[in-house]
Amino acid sequence: MSGAALRTRTQPTAAWREIQAPVQERREAVVLEMRRVVTADQPLIEQVSSHLLQIRGKMFRPTLALLASETAETPDERVVTLAAVLELMHLASLVHDDSVDHSALRRGLPTVNSLFSHQVSVIMGDFLYSRALEALVSLGDLDLMRVLTHVSTQLTIGEMRQLAAVDTLAFTVEDYDMLIQAKTASLLSAACETGAMCGAIQHRRALRLYGERLGMAFQVADDILDYTETASVTGKPSGLDLKEHKVTLPLIAALPRLSRSDRGVVDALFAMDAPGDAQVAEVVALVARHGGIDDARRRGEQFAREAEDALDRLPDTQARTALADAILYVMDRRS
Amino acid sequence: MSGAALRTRTQPTAAWREIQAPVQERREAVVLEMRRVVTADQPLIEQVSSHLLQIRGKMFRPTLALLASETAETPDERVVTLAAVLELMHLASLVHDDSVDHSALRRGLPTVNSLFSHQVSVIMGDFLYSRALEALVSLGDLDLMRVLTHVSTQLTIGEMRQLAAVDTLAFTVEDYDMLIQAKTASLLSAACETGAMCGAIQHRRALRLYGERLGMAFQVADDILDYTETASVTGKPSGLDLKEHKVTLPLIAALPRLSRSDRGVVDALFAMDAPGDAQVAEVVALVARHGGIDDARRRGEQFAREAEDALDRLPDTQARTALADAILYVMDRRS
Repeated sequence: MSGAALRTRTQPTAAWREIQAPVQERREAVVLEMRRVVTADQPLIEQVSSHLLQIRGKMFRPTLALLASETAETPDERVVTLAAVLELMHLASLVHDDSVDHSALRRGLPTVNSLFSHQVSVIMGDFLYSRALEALVSLGDLDLMRVLTHVSTQLTIGEMRQLAAVDTLAFTVEDYDMLIQAKTASLLSAACETGAMCGAIQHRRALRLYGERLGMAFQVADDILDYTETASVTGKPSGLDLKEHKVTLPLIAALPRLSRSDRGVVDALFAMDAPGDAQVAEVVALVARHGGIDDARRRGEQFAREAEDALDRLPDTQARTALADAILYVMDRRS
Repeated sequence: MSGAALRTRTQPTAAWREIQAPVQERREAVVLEMRRVVTADQPLIEQVSSHLLQIRGKMFRPTLALLASETAETPDERVVTLAAVLELMHLASLVHDDSVDHSALRRGLPTVNSLFSHQVSVIMGDFLYSRALEALVSLGDLDLMRVLTHVSTQLTIGEMRQLAAVDTLAFTVEDYDMLIQAKTASLLSAACETGAMCGAIQHRRALRLYGERLGMAFQVADDILDYTETASVTGKPSGLDLKEHKVTLPLIAALPRLSRSDRGVVDALFAMDAPGDAQVAEVVALVARHGGIDDARRRGEQFAREAEDALDRLPDTQARTALADAILYVMDRRS
């Protein structure tokens, strides 16, 4: 059903609320667990934690873990702590990303670096990550630890690749794939894999693959949004990646098709310290006109199909339907 | 023997080279293990790693772990990886500290934030820590993980306390103890405890206590140096803590004894955004004149005696002698 929907777009996309409906109760338990895990007897930490738990988003990774755990009959109570660990790891990486990027807003609220300081955000990211690991250790499962410490290294390698990718117009599709695999797909994949390890171990491989392909599709969709959506919807200025000289799939796809003079326009933007809105808009238009956005969409859809295929072997449960709907959600999201 | 030496100072302090002599061979294996653990297929990471492994200091924490492991007859091969993990955790926290403090030099060489960038140092600290944890997980010992993830949280809480301690002349000795316990003693204690857990498990409690008291003595000695040594010896300007409005034990001890006008001098320094060398020198002199440094020394010696006492129950081995000598080394070091 959802496969047909993906291919023809005749079905309306499921709202996020519906996707997480099968695990609603546990999802609330995850929020409580997150609060418990980050509690510390230090006023500044308490203050930053409250702020962070308030800017919490849709809890995509915990929801995936909970759904993965419920694809079999025997979901395991440990998944609540696991899901809290996943969201805290994600939150820790966001806090450091915002600090590294000097971002002022996250989900419409001030970032830790802007509201407190750069110092506080570095330390707070470390704190969240350490506490998450302590909670993970308390589950007493070496396999879970193996998967999640590995992913955590992948996230940092992804960040480093991201830094190295700035100002690099020679960045290839393969480079891009390696970047988004490390930066985004690794954690979504681990959320699904470790979710499966809590009660649906027989689906571990399938769910790991599903999560990985979903993650690739997710990041491609995100990078397309930067070329297509305006500030009022994403909460960040359109073309921000270009402003920051970040090379993503739409540009990579368009570059080889540019005339010498059009290529000169791109080069000029990348030579400017702070490109203006007009320069950015011109390059966005060039990328669109030369099929960069269409190409990126096709590649995103390919990843989405692979995510769907990975679900084929799972039993037909509410959780599986929700996971399939999550693919559509990722492809259609506007923020 | 070393106890008498500590009390009377008639024996020359053991050189660091002698302290680590009993574990010299394994110490070299630890360096190789550190290289293995931080290897990554990413050029920027390789570049920063090489720089970091080059500014490696005396490997205090690995040496303590190796010595602790050798206090019994059955040292365990896992201690080499454990020791590498400890040093990498320490290195990760130094990289983030330097970034948070905007420090330019570490052990006489440029910091990651000054040589590369702030961004690179945040990500690299995360990378080192993640890789260290992956290596730790590979040892397959939940107890080791429990101790070290807990310590890693303590380190971040210590950093947060440190931030909160800036500009706080109301900081008490108890606040200071909590700060240095979290920031410094926790990791030295864990180095000794986890070292013991690799082959000398019967001495786990004694060595944990030894490491903790040694760590307290170590940090007190460090904070005294800031009031007593000049740039040529420490590699950092004397009085740097005061310049940065950091309240440490010598000042805390002196404050209640200051006359109203002397207190005014301290308040004035803390009200200045960037106190000059003259202001700093004046407060350093005030602290010394009012016995702040002597008081701090007495407290440091108390911690050192407690560290020695903790070694009482250990069998008389080369490793135990080296651990006792390490106390003297910490008390007498000039850098």
